[in-house]
Amino acid sequence: MHTRPRVIVIGGGFGGLAAVRALRAAAVDVLLIDRGNHHTFQPLLYQVATAGLAAPSISAPLRHILRDQRNTTVLLGEARRIDIEGRSVDVDGTPHPYDFLIVATGSTHAYFGHDEWARYAPGLKTLDDALRIRARILTAFERAEATRDPAEQMEWLTFVIVGAGATGVELAGTLAEIARHTLKREFRHIDPAAAKVLLIEAGARVLPAFPPSLSTKAQHQLERLGVVVRTGRPVTSVEERSVWIGEERIAARTALWAAGVAASPLGATLGVAVDRAGRVPVTAQLTVAGHPEVFIVGDLTAVPEGSAPLPAIAPAAKQMGHYAATAILAKLAQRRLGPFRYRHFGSLATIGRMAAVADFGRIRLSGILAWWIWLTAHVYFLIGFRNRLVVLIDWAEAYWSYRRGARIIIPIGDSAKP
Amino acid sequence: MHTRPRVIVIGGGFGGLAAVRALRAAAVDVLLIDRGNHHTFQPLLYQVATAGLAAPSISAPLRHILRDQRNTTVLLGEARRIDIEGRSVDVDGTPHPYDFLIVATGSTHAYFGHDEWARYAPGLKTLDDALRIRARILTAFERAEATRDPAEQMEWLTFVIVGAGATGVELAGTLAEIARHTLKREFRHIDPAAAKVLLIEAGARVLPAFPPSLSTKAQHQLERLGVVVRTGRPVTSVEERSVWIGEERIAARTALWAAGVAASPLGATLGVAVDRAGRVPVTAQLTVAGHPEVFIVGDLTAVPEGSAPLPAIAPAAKQMGHYAATAILAKLAQRRLGPFRYRHFGSLATIGRMAAVADFGRIRLSGILAWWIWLTAHVYFLIGFRNRLVVLIDWAEAYWSYRRGARIIIPIGDSAKP
Repeated sequence: MHTRPRVIVIGGGFGGLAAVRALRAAAVDVLLIDRGNHHTFQPLLYQVATAGLAAPSISAPLRHILRDQRNTTVLLGEARRIDIEGRSVDVDGTPHPYDFLIVATGSTHAYFGHDEWARYAPGLKTLDDALRIRARILTAFERAEATRDPAEQMEWLTFVIVGAGATGVELAGTLAEIARHTLKREFRHIDPAAAKVLLIEAGARVLPAFPPSLSTKAQHQLERLGVVVRTGRPVTSVEERSVWIGEERIAARTALWAAGVAASPLGATLGVAVDRAGRVPVTAQLTVAGHPEVFIVGDLTAVPEGSAPLPAIAPAAKQMGHYAATAILAKLAQRRLGPFRYRHFGSLATIGRMAAVADFGRIRLSGILAWWIWLTAHVYFLIGFRNRLVVLIDWAEAYWSYRRGARIIIPIGDSAKP
Repeated sequence: MHTRPRVIVIGGGFGGLAAVRALRAAAVDVLLIDRGNHHTFQPLLYQVATAGLAAPSISAPLRHILRDQRNTTVLLGEARRIDIEGRSVDVDGTPHPYDFLIVATGSTHAYFGHDEWARYAPGLKTLDDALRIRARILTAFERAEATRDPAEQMEWLTFVIVGAGATGVELAGTLAEIARHTLKREFRHIDPAAAKVLLIEAGARVLPAFPPSLSTKAQHQLERLGVVVRTGRPVTSVEERSVWIGEERIAARTALWAAGVAASPLGATLGVAVDRAGRVPVTAQLTVAGHPEVFIVGDLTAVPEGSAPLPAIAPAAKQMGHYAATAILAKLAQRRLGPFRYRHFGSLATIGRMAAVADFGRIRLSGILAWWIWLTAHVYFLIGFRNRLVVLIDWAEAYWSYRRGARIIIPIGDSAKP
């Protein structure tokens, strides 16, 4: 009975969603599997974590996005294992057969073998992570206000961000702004502006993916906001009240992890050798060697030896997702398709109000102009008219008043299912 | 050293906040204690629970509201016990002395001695409750879509709301609208419009606090939206997959509790006899007998025998809070103050799009006009310009498109503290 080829896409992030959308007119049946019911606009997660935006503002239900794509079914569930020989995906115990498979499950945080640090230094990959970090940050100021012990007060007012990639830089800049501006006049026993925000980077400079000249500018902009930047030595331990750099102890009750990522563990169930970060090696067609029906897209992909590594950013995932869908259509039409080629449009990172860096190859910008480009690009790509408008209002208000619209502490559970 | 009288207000809801604000120009030191960091606009909680609004849209940080009230300190913490003779409040183990005390801790859900039902039928009093209910409702449709067992499917598509006061009516009407309109075209294996929404009321009619003519109109409006209304018999048991009315079993996986409330347990620590619902009896000045320095306001109050009971609505709590503050100022100025008098402005309940009832004594309205009054009043009273604007945008969009802006499932923890 089932005559149309069946395509399973695992993961509704940028890569998976781009693939599903590119298949909208195809004579195939598409099944999109995701653990959550929504697509998350990850580049703005740090805004949810720092109480600037509400979680719904940067997310949209997958079902709603795809409601009019009649060849597509959305399934809320966790893909546990892929049977690559049997061509089937196990979703919470139920096997789902496929003719083509696109795996787009992305990455999660990694603690370099120290998973016990996760408890004290949460990372930022999902909306739950963002709400958990938000609660930690807001609660730290509350605890500082409540205690009369000056040493404990300073521990609560010290924030350490580990890792100075784009996420670390964004968190540090925004936290400094919250301490110095947003919370002004609100406390009676502490001065929130006395809070210390430390950004620790093991490498030689902040934003290592950018040219050195922009790293220097980014560091200056961070320091102007009051962030203390420390580069060149790695964090060696994280505890409830301490972050250690070798023998040096930083007394801090709040640490945030923006350092390491590991590929989604689903890749390891494919039965092929993954790289050290858990990523799956692919051919020039983004397929698993010997399995032209299985595509790997997004952060889970390890590019072939000799190719330049792809940045872990939304445009790369989208291009891969789109390519995988096109490759399936080509195979069905028995057309040939060239190898995947990544087209880099540029890199952007924001630091704070009117502070950002932008790298477009020969053109490198920092400061106000970079910030406007960042703002425009992020609002433009955010899904759905309503989200865009509400985000703009929140940002306009934050800009004029330093207020942040989502300063509520809500307890977040540990499991991904209610 | 401490010469200014010290006023402690417990609870930052409508009653407590009104009291604190009325003390803004007084020569007293005010301490506001709350378990959460935010004021919640409770009349719109059902909108958060039904995915129409984001949680931050109906809440505002207490510190931010009160940042310029220099005589006031906000403390995040739980008041565990009141030592009425020693004039002190225990907040998480630390005693806080007072000269005047205003207790405004409100009420919580009550299951008529069946606390085991709480697990299966969550109630709606706080933002966490709302997010938990939202996750249940959205997950139920996902589970219905995922199963191939028609009986299980129908169980997931059956929603029982227990209690037909304002909250129950609002939840039932909105749920029916979500099933029939919002989710249209989004599922492939179920028709969400086939969902059954049952509203069960032990009393003789829906909205018992309204005149019978408006109850009849409200029931008609609910039925037009597709809600099945059952009155006159109480729910006798709630289980994971069943709601029982006597011998009759309703097979439902989702039950929501909007039936009973009990006063906050803090009232019982005062050492005076509380009534059956846990409320604290007060004098005509809203004070505890023999303790003119201790005021009880809001839902925790049991009015003196012979007085008409006060409705458990925001205006009543606000008036009581304001009165308690005025009474403290009068005592300090050695002025006399008459007894508290409640002024009733009217009652409103909304049912769904363009459907509501309004009771202003002689003037009774239902339908579109009542709905417009409801809408205007709620947006007007919602705190803060930004919240109002965002809520209006969300509602305008929901009105035109039936979309709901906050359809994300986030796991919510059980404790009130992160």
